[in-house]
Amino acid sequence: MTKKYHVAVLGATGAVGEQMIRTLERRNFPVEQLTLLSSARSAGKEITAFGKTHIVKEAKPDSFEHVDIALFSAGGSISKQFAPEAVKRGAVVVDNTSAFRMDKGTPLVVPEVNEADIKEHQGIIANPNCSTIQMVAALEPIRQKFGLTKIIVSTYQAVSGAGAQAIEELRTQNEAYLKGEELIANILPCGSDKKHYPLAYNAIPQIDKFTPNGYTFEEMKMINETKKIMHDDSLQVAATCVRIPVDMGHSESVYIEVEASGVTVEEIRNVFVNAPGVILQDNPDEQLYPMASTAKGKFEVFVGRIRKDLNEDRGFHLWIVSDNLLKGAAWNSVQIAESLIQLKLV
Amino acid sequence: MTKKYHVAVLGATGAVGEQMIRTLERRNFPVEQLTLLSSARSAGKEITAFGKTHIVKEAKPDSFEHVDIALFSAGGSISKQFAPEAVKRGAVVVDNTSAFRMDKGTPLVVPEVNEADIKEHQGIIANPNCSTIQMVAALEPIRQKFGLTKIIVSTYQAVSGAGAQAIEELRTQNEAYLKGEELIANILPCGSDKKHYPLAYNAIPQIDKFTPNGYTFEEMKMINETKKIMHDDSLQVAATCVRIPVDMGHSESVYIEVEASGVTVEEIRNVFVNAPGVILQDNPDEQLYPMASTAKGKFEVFVGRIRKDLNEDRGFHLWIVSDNLLKGAAWNSVQIAESLIQLKLV
Repeated sequence: MTKKYHVAVLGATGAVGEQMIRTLERRNFPVEQLTLLSSARSAGKEITAFGKTHIVKEAKPDSFEHVDIALFSAGGSISKQFAPEAVKRGAVVVDNTSAFRMDKGTPLVVPEVNEADIKEHQGIIANPNCSTIQMVAALEPIRQKFGLTKIIVSTYQAVSGAGAQAIEELRTQNEAYLKGEELIANILPCGSDKKHYPLAYNAIPQIDKFTPNGYTFEEMKMINETKKIMHDDSLQVAATCVRIPVDMGHSESVYIEVEASGVTVEEIRNVFVNAPGVILQDNPDEQLYPMASTAKGKFEVFVGRIRKDLNEDRGFHLWIVSDNLLKGAAWNSVQIAESLIQLKLV
Repeated sequence: MTKKYHVAVLGATGAVGEQMIRTLERRNFPVEQLTLLSSARSAGKEITAFGKTHIVKEAKPDSFEHVDIALFSAGGSISKQFAPEAVKRGAVVVDNTSAFRMDKGTPLVVPEVNEADIKEHQGIIANPNCSTIQMVAALEPIRQKFGLTKIIVSTYQAVSGAGAQAIEELRTQNEAYLKGEELIANILPCGSDKKHYPLAYNAIPQIDKFTPNGYTFEEMKMINETKKIMHDDSLQVAATCVRIPVDMGHSESVYIEVEASGVTVEEIRNVFVNAPGVILQDNPDEQLYPMASTAKGKFEVFVGRIRKDLNEDRGFHLWIVSDNLLKGAAWNSVQIAESLIQLKLV
């Protein structure tokens, strides 16, 4: 008989939390007991999972008694408050916030890239930023075969990355647009920032707040997390992060330079034939390329529009798309939990 | 008394044609007589311009008799058919299609960059691609001061670039989405291509058809036109062109490398203080940056999010936005017409 686990989901009523529960179901995860947790505000809600109705409880330190695996996605400050409590009680925390990602003792893991890092965990394993995950998953097979020296990425990010309220805000704006009414913005681009702009029929070049160097936190996450996951501080990474009026699915226009010279587009395409978790969708003659609309609901990362740069022999352009709530969040977290089981770390 | 001109607009009922007429009005262009032309299908429509009702006539070779300036925006094949006829009859044609852009004898003009090229015209002056225009207008002041060696651009293009029917298709898809109905696509990404995909809540990495090298025509236009306008064949240009669900306003995430070393962000910002037709919107503390929603209806090109690359001393990132139907099409065409008058070439 397979061992079964007591799994807790903190942030169960959020956009990512909901997908974590659905992903546990889709993967038929060996759940012995499921504990759904949230803030006091959302506690009491009912959620059906694994055929049973669960009542969401307010998270407290002793909520984590006897929990084996805790999936956190309730914001950075909540993670900082509860992750130590959960670890103290013997749980392994897979944290989807940015609270611990860059901490020296915390592995930052995309299983297709650095699964072995999980072994170093001291109770917390961090799930990277959504935009980072799909990019490194797609680039890792190229890096392994041809080396990788430079990444310049521009993102086309879905509103679901900003949470359930932001999804609703975009919908309301679209309704207003169609009626010829004024578009109201209270959340986007960033709930905790001063100004808000309509996203409907717009593109907003701000995700998260600005850091003092003029880059946003989202951009700096992509830069720093990529280096940490790929274990390469010399890797040159630049990012411009942009929100567009899409509900699900982040797209990325990525320019890379490989270490090897003389590599062909066909050779780049070939690295994806057996790449774990990555699907090649690249046939211009058939207008086949990844899109947010076709990646929605899928666990994989999709890669296409692979072209050699017309000037740089070592330069290539790619278009990378994935469901930001799944591979970008819920699925990557559950995948880490599956790795924990497979590596007998839980 | 100022001299006045007989101006013809070919494609008067299209999305760009309509803006050409409004732009002539907004600029109080010295129009003696206005002739509005279209295909047989759209002929007979009434359009009010300069306070008078005009009936749109079917374009025929002799429609251009006594015309001084003809603004063309009715598709490449129509331009190929009628531009020689108009020129034969003494008109100067400002052509907004790709029909003549790369021809050796045809100046390809963005007045802020290469107004003097107009003097070389042999009857036809080409208006560049919308995505190219705003990019070169914004980069020219940088190039003049610090030199320019490399451009890598990813675009976020509005649906209006694909015409009035595509605007309507996106609206219909948004309505269907809100009702939970299936999204129907018959035009986008490219009316003349085989397959069509919904743009609502999506990002489509295809604009125009694919060329044999895996780049789209839109991408190759940006690459080739930029070199021609800037008179620099050694300039390295790469482009990824993407359609997003925005009605008006193209946005561009642009990475550049300048020739000079040690240039600061402040120095880059300063080149825009007196740059013609370009407005700097760049203050992270105030969340000030260009957006499609705020560029809509404006003639200028807006630049912000200027950051120095964290690795390349000569590398900078910028975010460039402009109304694709105005500076990207109608206004640039009218601006060329104004230059023709100012240079006494008409």
